[in-house]
Amino acid sequence: MDITLVEVAPRDGLQNEKRAIATADKIELIHRAAAAGARRIEAVSFVHPDLVPQLADAEAVLAGVRGSDEISYAGLVFNDRGLDRAVAAGVHEINVVVVATDTFSRRNQGCDIEEAVARWERLAERAQQAGLWRTVTLAAAFGCPFEGEVPEARVRELIARVAEAGPQEIALADTIGAGTPDRVRRLVTALTELAPEALPRCHFHNTRNTGYANAVAALEAGVRVLDTSIGGIGGCPFAPAATGNIATEDLLYTLDRMGITTGVDIASTIDTARWLGEVLGAPVPALLGRAGVFPDIAVAQAHR
Amino acid sequence: MDITLVEVAPRDGLQNEKRAIATADKIELIHRAAAAGARRIEAVSFVHPDLVPQLADAEAVLAGVRGSDEISYAGLVFNDRGLDRAVAAGVHEINVVVVATDTFSRRNQGCDIEEAVARWERLAERAQQAGLWRTVTLAAAFGCPFEGEVPEARVRELIARVAEAGPQEIALADTIGAGTPDRVRRLVTALTELAPEALPRCHFHNTRNTGYANAVAALEAGVRVLDTSIGGIGGCPFAPAATGNIATEDLLYTLDRMGITTGVDIASTIDTARWLGEVLGAPVPALLGRAGVFPDIAVAQAHR
Repeated sequence: MDITLVEVAPRDGLQNEKRAIATADKIELIHRAAAAGARRIEAVSFVHPDLVPQLADAEAVLAGVRGSDEISYAGLVFNDRGLDRAVAAGVHEINVVVVATDTFSRRNQGCDIEEAVARWERLAERAQQAGLWRTVTLAAAFGCPFEGEVPEARVRELIARVAEAGPQEIALADTIGAGTPDRVRRLVTALTELAPEALPRCHFHNTRNTGYANAVAALEAGVRVLDTSIGGIGGCPFAPAATGNIATEDLLYTLDRMGITTGVDIASTIDTARWLGEVLGAPVPALLGRAGVFPDIAVAQAHR
Repeated sequence: MDITLVEVAPRDGLQNEKRAIATADKIELIHRAAAAGARRIEAVSFVHPDLVPQLADAEAVLAGVRGSDEISYAGLVFNDRGLDRAVAAGVHEINVVVVATDTFSRRNQGCDIEEAVARWERLAERAQQAGLWRTVTLAAAFGCPFEGEVPEARVRELIARVAEAGPQEIALADTIGAGTPDRVRRLVTALTELAPEALPRCHFHNTRNTGYANAVAALEAGVRVLDTSIGGIGGCPFAPAATGNIATEDLLYTLDRMGITTGVDIASTIDTARWLGEVLGAPVPALLGRAGVFPDIAVAQAHR
């Protein structure tokens, strides 16, 4: 089985950092991810710079990134102005977020669900005209930091609504790491039934040690596109206590051992995570860099 | 669905600690686990005190633990002397380890696989006469820190061998956190087929962020007894880079959300993990204590 990992460290990974990250470091992170084999990279966000100053340098980052026919660069887009910037900067994909609760939606992007869906429809149409790949992400699909439980019926309804604008891909995001494998299976099944034309994609955080089990459940339910973040860094600036994405290298360990191919190299990803820890001034949350890849580590230890 | 969590923090959790843990703290840990609802507790090891000095006070720990008809206390046993101690100390269960590779077996318990199986057979017979519950644990069943890959055929063969002595329970242990969900499913299926008279049990470490996905896979494959450790503490003193068990509270979060009952209370387990971190002088690896239980935390944050 072959699946695609969307590398989100440059965007979701860095957006929550207190420390200012140099544009050159962001560019190097993207280059390192590409060199390790990532073929889809969520590189930037075209959110208003006042809201997420960490990501204000989207144009400079993209200008510094080497082009490649093999790599698709994505940017988050929230409104028309963001789409204008995305088109001008030359991204290949846009990712538009629709949050599954009104409270979180207002805090995250200043509008309720209805308005967010309407924006997505307008952006989808414009992005289609511009020839861009269109992903719509349903955030907080597994739970909301403000409203708590999110009814599955509402997520199903939202899937059907956003599918009408013809996205190539619909992502279910567990923004705060609240989901569990049973709900992942149910919602992924709903996604494939309600939006058969769209690729299903999932985005998990490991806030409560559920992220990797959820990723495995998503694969079992038919998902072939998963978001991961080198080092497991990340979080949402508008969601309290949101912590890191599932780590690219830690998921790769499981995938490699299960014979699921991604084209991404685990050893160079671990190297990049170590480098990223130095850039960020703190070790990354991922475990592979500490534990070592089995059985390589076993063989090394047996011979020492 | 109702499952049993065997609380292993007092034994597997503490055996790898550098800092000396007072007997009184071990007793308090056991009492706290029992108060939270644990009904099976791996309380002590009857390993030779020179080999694992951290656990040398097994008799004193058990003497200090309040008896209860509802709680079964287990001790690890490696040889006849250990069984004598276990019987004298009044444990309800013994757990005998057979390691799946000769190299690790010699380092862990000073004998090869053949001799370990022979010891298990003798101990099983004696423990049966003494009226004790008998578990045999196949350690390193998912990988060895010294020999690397462990052939599944050998694990299946070992299951059949140790089943002959009539254990009530056979546990598959991923001592170094090398396993992945596919292998868990295959080996659990083999276990239920090859030893239909024995309860299947699993023991996972989260060394490479695979532990919780493995636990979910084990449940799906029919396992109803899982080892967990409060706070996710633990490791093996004879296996390099072995880190913590899956955490009781983190697995409980997933189980509670999936409607799988255990009788163990998550809030008091989180409290105990926090206390345990103070005793150990470092925060525990579990994530629930930091993230909070969803949706409780969401509701609390929405109202602040």
